[in-house]
Amino acid sequence: MKVLITTVPFADKNKLPLDMLDDAGFKYVINPTGKKLTEEKLAELVTDFDVIIAGTEPITEFVMSKAKNLRMISRVGIGLDSVDLLAAKKRGIKVSYTPDAPSPAVAELTIGLIITLLRSVHLSNLQMHKGEWNRYFGKRIADATIGVIGLGRIGTRVLNRLSVFGTPKLLVNDISRNQELDHKFKLDWVSKEKIYQEADIISLHLPLTAKTKNMIGREQLLMMKSDASIINTSRGGIINEKDLFDVMKEGHLSGAAIDVFDNEPYSGELVGIENCVLTAHMGSMSIDCRTRMEIESTEEAVRFLLGKPLKSEVPEAEYAVQREGL
Amino acid sequence: MKVLITTVPFADKNKLPLDMLDDAGFKYVINPTGKKLTEEKLAELVTDFDVIIAGTEPITEFVMSKAKNLRMISRVGIGLDSVDLLAAKKRGIKVSYTPDAPSPAVAELTIGLIITLLRSVHLSNLQMHKGEWNRYFGKRIADATIGVIGLGRIGTRVLNRLSVFGTPKLLVNDISRNQELDHKFKLDWVSKEKIYQEADIISLHLPLTAKTKNMIGREQLLMMKSDASIINTSRGGIINEKDLFDVMKEGHLSGAAIDVFDNEPYSGELVGIENCVLTAHMGSMSIDCRTRMEIESTEEAVRFLLGKPLKSEVPEAEYAVQREGL
Repeated sequence: MKVLITTVPFADKNKLPLDMLDDAGFKYVINPTGKKLTEEKLAELVTDFDVIIAGTEPITEFVMSKAKNLRMISRVGIGLDSVDLLAAKKRGIKVSYTPDAPSPAVAELTIGLIITLLRSVHLSNLQMHKGEWNRYFGKRIADATIGVIGLGRIGTRVLNRLSVFGTPKLLVNDISRNQELDHKFKLDWVSKEKIYQEADIISLHLPLTAKTKNMIGREQLLMMKSDASIINTSRGGIINEKDLFDVMKEGHLSGAAIDVFDNEPYSGELVGIENCVLTAHMGSMSIDCRTRMEIESTEEAVRFLLGKPLKSEVPEAEYAVQREGL
Repeated sequence: MKVLITTVPFADKNKLPLDMLDDAGFKYVINPTGKKLTEEKLAELVTDFDVIIAGTEPITEFVMSKAKNLRMISRVGIGLDSVDLLAAKKRGIKVSYTPDAPSPAVAELTIGLIITLLRSVHLSNLQMHKGEWNRYFGKRIADATIGVIGLGRIGTRVLNRLSVFGTPKLLVNDISRNQELDHKFKLDWVSKEKIYQEADIISLHLPLTAKTKNMIGREQLLMMKSDASIINTSRGGIINEKDLFDVMKEGHLSGAAIDVFDNEPYSGELVGIENCVLTAHMGSMSIDCRTRMEIESTEEAVRFLLGKPLKSEVPEAEYAVQREGL
């Protein structure tokens, strides 16, 4: 029984996941390319592995067709857009994930990016390094209108962390209204359009699905105030990258912070936009959360390999999202 | 009776301070250079003014000797290192300040800088803009050892805001132990040296005095862990800039965030240090705090001009600091 670990870095800060595989007596290979695998490369590599401990590389029907022995995919993380769940089900391949582990790290990074954008830290830093001194006015969180789209594990944590900074105007949107959150926070449940139009800063905490793909394009970006900012720490593709480049190039928006991209590693046009903060899909990259994700996904893989019951299988709702194009 | 407003920008986002002066019938001049005045330039400008609504430009004995009519200085902000309080007292010049107004904005910026440094946002952003994709590991606040030196209005607010992110190891230092804070936070009161040696990130919230001037030089910086970071949003001069440049150039420290400088506008050597986040003395530059500072300092100036009792005179303790070189 062999395990392919595709996500990199892996066990870089904590060797426990590898120890767990060694102790259970299973062989493993860590992605030898050191970077995110393409569909083709993964299809080449995967041929005789039984389990994939997976990053965000595309595990498509084509990949599965080349992976004759594949019986289980254990995702290191929460997003499932990279896995063709329906193809997996058809072939009897189990899929597990680690939905809780990344949330605190992503939420915390998001707060840092909100303050960076509200206070123009990125712009001042850039200009200072060129020898230019410009004192930018900013807004405190308490004085801003903040739009949060998606109030799942991460979005709700963002609300919680914002609360210590005072009481900003919070415009929120999700598929359904979560009454419990209304007890904790003062929220305006509004349409996405109202968020685009009124927020000083918008943060997205959504999965990538057929419905959210290109959800924010030129039309939505132009609805935003010219001095507003947008943050995406969820999944590339939700904001149309080309449209974001175009509107920012035209001088619209005071800033953006983009951690996730259509194609990663990213090296597209946004690198030319100075007031766009770019990070390398680092939302979950705190040592503690990353370690927890790696341990949980490896534990699940080991459970599968030993024939024990799984603890974190992807729920039916996630299959429905892909089946119904939600 | 004439008022010289030296701090710029002034009344940029809210005209109320100027309305207050107009309504009371007092003439004013706003610093015509648009930037921070030098001692010489200020001495030239100030000759026939009665009141200065002051930024951080040096109001020295020399300046006062040229300001024959000067009777009152109303500082927009909290720091008094720029004002020779003893010379002012000798000449019967009253000094007021706005100690509370800037604190929330400075504390919030500090939290943003802590997250930026802990997660290497500044490095990833810089490299992404050069087309380089490197996923940095970071620490969450909860997983870090955070050193806070100075627990006054701003330092305590930083502690408060950190608390929503979990329970980091907090190493703190101040002139005296504040028992009240021990009820609210789990604090290790330790020497500055222990903070230098053990913290992952150090934030300074101190006034600039004879004692804090060059408090952190080469020796102290080299005590810090090679992957630690330091933040200064308080006053330039507390960290020796040349020493910070030298040790970072040598590859020591993973980052720094410097908002305040010996000479402002700053254009010194640190602009060449890529992992040093530089901002243009923007700690208090949130619209709401800046407006409050301008209104409070102008109100105080108007009270003086109308012969009413002052509400925010600098307390005797601040004179003692300068008298005794504390």
